[in-house]
Amino acid sequence: MTPRPRPDNTAQSQILLTLRDEGPVSRAELGDRLELPRARLAAELGRLAELGLARDGGPAASRGGRRSTLVELDPELRFAGVDLGATSVTVEVTDASLEPVASVEEPIDIRSGPEAVLDRIDDLLAKVRADGHLTRLAGIGLGVPGPVSYRDGVPVSPPIMPGWDRYPVREELAGRHGCPVVVDNDVNIMVVGERRGGVARSIEDLLFVKVGTGIGCGIVVGGQVYRGVDGCAGDIGHIQVDPHGPVCACGNAGCLEAVFGGAALARDALAAARNDTSPSLAERLRTHGTVTAADVGAGAVEGDPVCIGLIRDGGRRLGGVLASLVSFFNPSMIVIGGGLAGLGHLLLAEVRSVIYRRSLPLATRNLPVVLSELGSRAGVAGAAALVSELAYGPVTR
Amino acid sequence: MTPRPRPDNTAQSQILLTLRDEGPVSRAELGDRLELPRARLAAELGRLAELGLARDGGPAASRGGRRSTLVELDPELRFAGVDLGATSVTVEVTDASLEPVASVEEPIDIRSGPEAVLDRIDDLLAKVRADGHLTRLAGIGLGVPGPVSYRDGVPVSPPIMPGWDRYPVREELAGRHGCPVVVDNDVNIMVVGERRGGVARSIEDLLFVKVGTGIGCGIVVGGQVYRGVDGCAGDIGHIQVDPHGPVCACGNAGCLEAVFGGAALARDALAAARNDTSPSLAERLRTHGTVTAADVGAGAVEGDPVCIGLIRDGGRRLGGVLASLVSFFNPSMIVIGGGLAGLGHLLLAEVRSVIYRRSLPLATRNLPVVLSELGSRAGVAGAAALVSELAYGPVTR
Repeated sequence: MTPRPRPDNTAQSQILLTLRDEGPVSRAELGDRLELPRARLAAELGRLAELGLARDGGPAASRGGRRSTLVELDPELRFAGVDLGATSVTVEVTDASLEPVASVEEPIDIRSGPEAVLDRIDDLLAKVRADGHLTRLAGIGLGVPGPVSYRDGVPVSPPIMPGWDRYPVREELAGRHGCPVVVDNDVNIMVVGERRGGVARSIEDLLFVKVGTGIGCGIVVGGQVYRGVDGCAGDIGHIQVDPHGPVCACGNAGCLEAVFGGAALARDALAAARNDTSPSLAERLRTHGTVTAADVGAGAVEGDPVCIGLIRDGGRRLGGVLASLVSFFNPSMIVIGGGLAGLGHLLLAEVRSVIYRRSLPLATRNLPVVLSELGSRAGVAGAAALVSELAYGPVTR
Repeated sequence: MTPRPRPDNTAQSQILLTLRDEGPVSRAELGDRLELPRARLAAELGRLAELGLARDGGPAASRGGRRSTLVELDPELRFAGVDLGATSVTVEVTDASLEPVASVEEPIDIRSGPEAVLDRIDDLLAKVRADGHLTRLAGIGLGVPGPVSYRDGVPVSPPIMPGWDRYPVREELAGRHGCPVVVDNDVNIMVVGERRGGVARSIEDLLFVKVGTGIGCGIVVGGQVYRGVDGCAGDIGHIQVDPHGPVCACGNAGCLEAVFGGAALARDALAAARNDTSPSLAERLRTHGTVTAADVGAGAVEGDPVCIGLIRDGGRRLGGVLASLVSFFNPSMIVIGGGLAGLGHLLLAEVRSVIYRRSLPLATRNLPVVLSELGSRAGVAGAAALVSELAYGPVTR
């Protein structure tokens, strides 16, 4: 029972995906490209117009013979990409070709549970609608900060999302909005976004490493997101990097997340501010009453040796894990994103240096390790792209 | 210019793969299953008979109507699976359905270079032919102990194979034998073998860990071998497990292979024999003049604490790496194979204990960690299976 509108068949789906990725195309060219006879094409386009998905868009430039008509996606169609974090939610609304038309963000507390949080998402969509930007919703893509069964559209044992385990998020949202919905892990939507509109365009085998409060990894194999058998592939934040390291929220000692990432960096920064080893951090603690991972980045820019040291140490730990993954996975590219990607080239230099030193030369000679191009937009852009695949895919699949 | 015989089209290919996997099938059932009209089926079967790939095999059991004829693969067709190690080569010849009909093994030195080694493989095939078991060769699958560009059929910078870098192994073998050839990394052929005829039947997302002289990993994603962008995915032997560990042959310190695996275990066993901490190993050194990884296994069975300790320590190191890979890859199954899988349940218990303790519960609750069922046959069985996919695939692909 997937909500309409969605195309009936593969030919209609191919037409929509062509228009999404290339903009308006003439009937003549569409027929040639998709090898559809004129009558068949006319019938499929008629059906797409009925469904409110595509329409005629005026005369096309002449190709010499009879003038053809342009076909375009319905200009009123909208997708919503939603990136749900532990403490905030971002919604981006795009047109039918995934160009952004509006964006809103709000603080939330994911621990308030699925109903309260989904209500807040409704409010944000209502706000965009009131502003005239949400004409006709064709799909919602949602990323959540925890493991997801993509097939079932439910979070599965998400550690930082009490009350969400197996909650039917996809069904609930689809019921509320009457449109196709996909739900995925936040890192998976980011890797989709970066691959569609960022630095990883057309890369087939790819790792996207999100370094935020926690650390996770989106995996693309052969152009498709790889989610693992339980939907928790890419959970690299709990790889052990130091058996004698600090205890992690998961209960094990020395997880990557326990030694690096936003939470660990804030903890180490606070310690450095309190014991006065870092004048820069001590000053920030006096002024603001607290210090954050961003303060470490700012301190490093000012040349504070403790801040630089913290980023270097963290980069070395992250680099060690990524070097192992390069040996295992032999990717075409590694993209670093998430909030701490703002630590920038100091972090990147350290990560690169470890990867290039530790991994097999064959696996690194052509391996770019780069920062995300989309930054904080990666998640919402990917969520909208992911649901467009569903909304433009034939109902039968 | 792929050598014949191979089918012309997808329908012929589907017929051959059906017969390979299910044995003789009646014409009537083939037509129903593949949705081929009677005349089309007859034409395709005629062509397969011309190519010497399939033939009529007598009357089928009646289904009530007109009696149908059985179709079978040509009983003279043979595939050769070749597993090339550093110091030995094993050849298994199978019939058209991948049932083994003959097996031969010989010591070689891979450092003698590709021409000398390929000559030895020719000799072995000639021997099987002289014994009457190699009637008509339809394909050769070859696994080599190093990275391979699967697309090009050449080894790429293989560390222990001097003289083989970019040597056109596939072309050379295809030229010598006039049949389709595939060349792949040894661990990749083992995972194919285990998935086709071993413990991992029908598993879609799978890791096969070979613990031999070195350590490597075969990766299956969605039922297909994942090789990485340079063909060196699964090179887990060079993941660092101890920054203060022994220097590895690759030049880095503390690689998994430098602390565990056949070579490392033999080194540690020799030390224990010499400094007399292990009576069992000291005795073997006196009797045989040397000690091997197998002696450690034998000592452990006899209850020698040093031998048990060496296996436990190694299992813990291997388990730590696999725990990281479970967090990253969230597989459906992990299979342990290769020579040191003979260390058996002591090794397996240690590996399992680390994986189950260190990885996310969601990723391990249904995760079997098991020993290879095919043992030393995994490689040759997989190599034959891999080339059968090519030989039964349409020429056009």
